[in-house]
Amino acid sequence: MRPYQRQLACSLLLLLLTTGAALLGCHAFWPRTRPAPPRTNVILLIGDGLGDAEITAARNYLVGGAGRLVMERLPVLGRMTTYAVVENAPHLPDYVVDSAASATAWATGKKTSVGRVSTAPQTGQPLPTLAEQSRAAGIPVGIVTTAAVTDATPAALAAHINARTCQGPADMALCPDFRRERGGLGSIAEQILDQRFEIVLGGGRTRFEQRLDGHDDRSTLLQTARQSGFTLLTHGGELEKPLIPPILGLFAAGDFDRLWKGVPARPYPGSGPQRCDSVGRPPEQPTLEDMTGKALEVLDRVARQRGRPFFLQVEGANIDKSAHAAEPCAQIGETAEFDRAVDLAWRYAQEQGNTLLVVTADHAHATQVIPHPLAGAHFPGLLATLVTNEGALLTIGYATNVLSSPQTHTGSDVSVFAFGPHSERLSGRHDQTELFAILAHALGLHS
Amino acid sequence: MRPYQRQLACSLLLLLLTTGAALLGCHAFWPRTRPAPPRTNVILLIGDGLGDAEITAARNYLVGGAGRLVMERLPVLGRMTTYAVVENAPHLPDYVVDSAASATAWATGKKTSVGRVSTAPQTGQPLPTLAEQSRAAGIPVGIVTTAAVTDATPAALAAHINARTCQGPADMALCPDFRRERGGLGSIAEQILDQRFEIVLGGGRTRFEQRLDGHDDRSTLLQTARQSGFTLLTHGGELEKPLIPPILGLFAAGDFDRLWKGVPARPYPGSGPQRCDSVGRPPEQPTLEDMTGKALEVLDRVARQRGRPFFLQVEGANIDKSAHAAEPCAQIGETAEFDRAVDLAWRYAQEQGNTLLVVTADHAHATQVIPHPLAGAHFPGLLATLVTNEGALLTIGYATNVLSSPQTHTGSDVSVFAFGPHSERLSGRHDQTELFAILAHALGLHS
Repeated sequence: MRPYQRQLACSLLLLLLTTGAALLGCHAFWPRTRPAPPRTNVILLIGDGLGDAEITAARNYLVGGAGRLVMERLPVLGRMTTYAVVENAPHLPDYVVDSAASATAWATGKKTSVGRVSTAPQTGQPLPTLAEQSRAAGIPVGIVTTAAVTDATPAALAAHINARTCQGPADMALCPDFRRERGGLGSIAEQILDQRFEIVLGGGRTRFEQRLDGHDDRSTLLQTARQSGFTLLTHGGELEKPLIPPILGLFAAGDFDRLWKGVPARPYPGSGPQRCDSVGRPPEQPTLEDMTGKALEVLDRVARQRGRPFFLQVEGANIDKSAHAAEPCAQIGETAEFDRAVDLAWRYAQEQGNTLLVVTADHAHATQVIPHPLAGAHFPGLLATLVTNEGALLTIGYATNVLSSPQTHTGSDVSVFAFGPHSERLSGRHDQTELFAILAHALGLHS
Repeated sequence: MRPYQRQLACSLLLLLLTTGAALLGCHAFWPRTRPAPPRTNVILLIGDGLGDAEITAARNYLVGGAGRLVMERLPVLGRMTTYAVVENAPHLPDYVVDSAASATAWATGKKTSVGRVSTAPQTGQPLPTLAEQSRAAGIPVGIVTTAAVTDATPAALAAHINARTCQGPADMALCPDFRRERGGLGSIAEQILDQRFEIVLGGGRTRFEQRLDGHDDRSTLLQTARQSGFTLLTHGGELEKPLIPPILGLFAAGDFDRLWKGVPARPYPGSGPQRCDSVGRPPEQPTLEDMTGKALEVLDRVARQRGRPFFLQVEGANIDKSAHAAEPCAQIGETAEFDRAVDLAWRYAQEQGNTLLVVTADHAHATQVIPHPLAGAHFPGLLATLVTNEGALLTIGYATNVLSSPQTHTGSDVSVFAFGPHSERLSGRHDQTELFAILAHALGLHS
């Protein structure tokens, strides 16, 4: 470039920059209307027990060692610590958490002890939840799970109780002070009805067939719910209709059935080599992605009507329950379904642009990807060899409890994957209690 | 603010912005010298067997559930897949890797089968390594480990051989075609000497006390090394002196001793509750951070003289060996030492600004953080309960092999932590083979 060209280019650039600067500089001082705060929906997807070994095992089987699950393609990756605290010494950690204490951490921002649902250790004081705070701010709330809706992970958003087993009015042996008769908040099922969240979908119908306060002469919770205006669903086909909130879908007596079957893990030489069977569920039990899609439709509509964001929690619950049972095929099938729900939610978030999507687990589990068994050197617990979709042998072991007893959780950190506004706050390492603050901030609460 | 104040402020801002724009705009067109390409050093720290369960266990013991190890504070976090391939069917993955195939992946960018050191599966063809390519480009190379320098992780940078056990000229039973006598590349120890990397520090002296080609009438490798100009070290105290490359420090007959001791994990009810004892090492064995510091000093000097970056690999080797032995105290002590080496390297990288620091593991291991043992529900393998620094009980289990046999690796993904130029490329999920390309690019190779 010659000197006069350089000077000409420089002058032109100066003119451009000056005009831009003038517009920018003065714009900052001109009176104007304040823009409305951005509306950020939150979709939180929890793979129950979906630790890193569980993710690795599912990836290997489904898409191969070099493949990636949908959740792994989300742009932000972080890690989360999950420990609980000791009931009688809550200043001390309990390094292996359960789903109740874990869900309490992100639902309330506070650590509690294993088995507690959004109540403080020792005192039993109720801890306000993100879902309750959302409702108070006019933000519609949805809860979706493949377990009973009264199970720990959904319950932590909707209920406060000192034992996760107190799911219906007839299950209150461990929670006498929470009984309605004694002026308590009631069982988890009763508290779910009280919350009147816009949409709650899952299993656990038997809890709601119990009678109020456990008395034979009272109405069942289902009858009460119908009388108080709930739209009640019992068959997945009903999700296709337009529905008016509050909606309560109870599609199974307890937890949903598993989508996949295989021979469970066994002592050496283990089960298999085998391929897993996709057996499907009874027709009344919808898929996790169908429930997620319906919840998004309902919440999107209500949120737009109110000019508010929405908050949806979706749980792939039976990953955990399959790992407890040392059933790798069931576990991988449920993980595949969970990943399809992630895919659906991610597509919604990409279309909308105003949605924070967070995918994580509540705790790590017993699964290990292990070497193939040999006569003299093999896993001493339960093991199963699967033939993966890419045609390789995958041996999975479970050895965290005496044989014939359920496998236990483990205390490793879990991964968190995220997309959308505020998602960058989840990169790096956080504790689950920090997830509460990040989601609350995205929803415009406490800001 | 009143209108005239607004106008005054606007004018002042305009003046400022115009001046800035003029400086910026014209600067871009003024002739100037092209800056030298940035010199990015690479420090790669490998925690052998430091999977996420191992990180969680060490964090819980050392700094508590809410604490963070130094490596966890690095700004970039990613995940890495580690699988190997099957020797006789290399299109198929072997989902549980060993240190040799794993180190080959980042050292060469190619997958190989378990046990191979930077050679291709089936053919045994040597795969060029990052260290060799560095040397060819005038980039000084350092290798530091607490294992024998002929062990798999350091060997993968320096040697090509079809079995990791072929460490000295007398250990070639599995590698007949690699013997010098047959025109082969020789044992790992012989190949390390051939490479003449600037600094190699660790254990494994007995490999170098073997005679060339295993013949009684020839010189030992140590004698040959001395004759060919190596600076040989056998005591950690010698690291304090100024040293002239090539430097070979062999501070232990085999691997270094463990820094911490405790009662190993045992069958139910397990060992402990116990605190770990810091017993230290024999005086001739330096700490990992002292070796790392010396390597940085030497490489920094040579790199500056040559106007090149440097490449240093540091391995905390005995995390893995302690996990194989189900010794949680030894494992945590070695992890603590590794974390101190990370701290030292990070401080160097922060001071220099031109250094990419990468901390990762080669594979996950057998460790699990498990619930406290009960009579009727407990871990069926080996377990140990430790009293952590924050005063809580931490139960750690190992159950991947028949009792009395070494614990095995597991196939979970591992974490990667990074800092410095190009570190953002490590966020998200990668395979270990991609680490090769990222490090090569940072060093200015293949660009």
